Amino acid sequence: MLAVCWHYDVSARELDAIAGMGKIMKIEDIGEQGLLTILQRFCPQEIVGDDAAVIATQADRSLVITTDMLVDGVHFSDRTTGPYYAGWRAAAANLSDLAAMGATPLAVTVALGVSGNTAVEWVEEFYRGMTACLQQYHAPIVGGDIVRSPAVTAAITAFGEVAENRTIRRSNARSNWAIVATGVHGASRAGLELLLHPEFGQNLAGVDRTSLIISHQHPTPRLDVLPVLWEILDAENREISIAGMDSSDGLADAIVQICRASKVGARIERLRIPVPRAIEQIVSTQTALNWALYGGEDFELVLCLPSDLAEKLIHILGNGSAIVGKMTDCSDILLVDSTGTYADEELKISKGFQHF
Amino acid sequence: MLAVCWHYDVSARELDAIAGMGKIMKIEDIGEQGLLTILQRFCPQEIVGDDAAVIATQADRSLVITTDMLVDGVHFSDRTTGPYYAGWRAAAANLSDLAAMGATPLAVTVALGVSGNTAVEWVEEFYRGMTACLQQYHAPIVGGDIVRSPAVTAAITAFGEVAENRTIRRSNARSNWAIVATGVHGASRAGLELLLHPEFGQNLAGVDRTSLIISHQHPTPRLDVLPVLWEILDAENREISIAGMDSSDGLADAIVQICRASKVGARIERLRIPVPRAIEQIVSTQTALNWALYGGEDFELVLCLPSDLAEKLIHILGNGSAIVGKMTDCSDILLVDSTGTYADEELKISKGFQHF
Repeated sequence: MLAVCWHYDVSARELDAIAGMGKIMKIEDIGEQGLLTILQRFCPQEIVGDDAAVIATQADRSLVITTDMLVDGVHFSDRTTGPYYAGWRAAAANLSDLAAMGATPLAVTVALGVSGNTAVEWVEEFYRGMTACLQQYHAPIVGGDIVRSPAVTAAITAFGEVAENRTIRRSNARSNWAIVATGVHGASRAGLELLLHPEFGQNLAGVDRTSLIISHQHPTPRLDVLPVLWEILDAENREISIAGMDSSDGLADAIVQICRASKVGARIERLRIPVPRAIEQIVSTQTALNWALYGGEDFELVLCLPSDLAEKLIHILGNGSAIVGKMTDCSDILLVDSTGTYADEELKISKGFQHF
Repeated sequence: MLAVCWHYDVSARELDAIAGMGKIMKIEDIGEQGLLTILQRFCPQEIVGDDAAVIATQADRSLVITTDMLVDGVHFSDRTTGPYYAGWRAAAANLSDLAAMGATPLAVTVALGVSGNTAVEWVEEFYRGMTACLQQYHAPIVGGDIVRSPAVTAAITAFGEVAENRTIRRSNARSNWAIVATGVHGASRAGLELLLHPEFGQNLAGVDRTSLIISHQHPTPRLDVLPVLWEILDAENREISIAGMDSSDGLADAIVQICRASKVGARIERLRIPVPRAIEQIVSTQTALNWALYGGEDFELVLCLPSDLAEKLIHILGNGSAIVGKMTDCSDILLVDSTGTYADEELKISKGFQHF
């Protein structure tokens, strides 16, 4: 099978992982990135690689499409998230992908796999959670499919539309632009920890505990950021293509992905990363920073734009939004400490969830 | 849980199926139709109920969206369909839903669930099959998701567009219109039988055997019918909203669904149902008719339109296309025999695949 491996264009490390000649290559041998590399060959290169696909349907407007699959025991679990919140989170994750592209939601479809043994109430609560989230953004469920499956599985596809010149892409960032996080990070990871270990963080005030848990179970897609952004651009009469993505795979992942796609570097200021104060009451500053950078599922937007516009944006947004650093023309993506306590550190692609 | 049952609005029969008070209702208790009834409450009523959802995005054009989930062991199996053909069939089924709405394909997204133990070659062949089908209709895979799942699961969402006045809907049929099947029926069911039982149909000529198997493994979505249909309407300068759906769940199912949605009845002429001659060499005429009516997965279109236009359509299409009957203003949906050998028979909703 070695010829096939070369054909697949997997890395030397992945090739090393394949023990012997003639072995049937499994997905666990090549990992998620190896599989992605293979599957992207079947897609037009100009289209994939953002949070969602963009298809020009009219002269000045595009259709934006994103799809997510969620599997019971992998993406949600009754242990931490009942069906209502699993549904809410599934909808929120898809709408967050649309927000990351600058798109206004139109509708979603939901394909659902369940076994005969699945409780009807579970399914109904899942749909109730989804629609509660979707209704806030006037995005109806317009269709779907129901099939038998050994594990409860939901595949959600969300559609939105965006004006061609307002499309937010990972590849739009430029050197010297500011990097904005639209809100605090690490809260979802902390909330998950509190749900998994009820004995943990007993010293937290009730309101702080609830707030962290809500961050995990009931995230808000940041579609509200878009009109603010357009208003700032319109007021300045500036035609700028903003760069960005959402932080569903972590703040660090978002920054690294934008840098790679835009072929720029970044300097992130350690002290500027917005971490909820409650987290530092339950874990060390270093762990809190790790959760903020790599925890994921905060569903904020990470936007890159000229500094003066970024200042205006966080002034209006408030609520933990911050300029966390700036793009550079180097290739390094560095976490720096202006107080000099910590040495510079290379930001990595997500240390978070890996599927295989 | 009885209050919940009432709230769910399931039928009396389904209520009877729930053994005792206080039992947690499972999906197997209410069946696929019961579950659909519940889930449709979460969707806008004016949008769902056709082969695909239609969203008006421009003044005169609509976006058409359809989604399917396929699970290994439920919808495909290496026993009858290798991964290449499973991928082809999955793409063809979605494109067939677009054709059933009169829509031209734009693109698809694919969410894929696999385990670490899945062979990479299986996944690659599945994608190869999908793209082979999609490329014929210039519909690229524009995005997707890859997740871990205990059973190989693919969720495909296809997008197309249609001029507002060309949208084919189940509810457009009128009394006295002709019912057209765009090709032969029963071939896919016969091909499946040959694949499952290689000892079966030994008397068939090789070419006939291959043709039936190809019908099952390599179906063609009837997107080619649309330009023919529009040309006929244009030539006649007739503004007519055609009714129709695809026959993926069987010819009988398609006719019944159109009748219900359009609130008309139908008389189907037994001898006019186009069945490939090869099938009658391997099973009785009655079984062949059953396969044609209830076998499913032939992916033809079932269209209802004025008789003069229907005649023109089948004249151009040829290849087994036929006028199988006509709509009536009664409520009965009858299979009739003009030779008088068989008594009239009520056509039923699919006897085919039920998920739960």
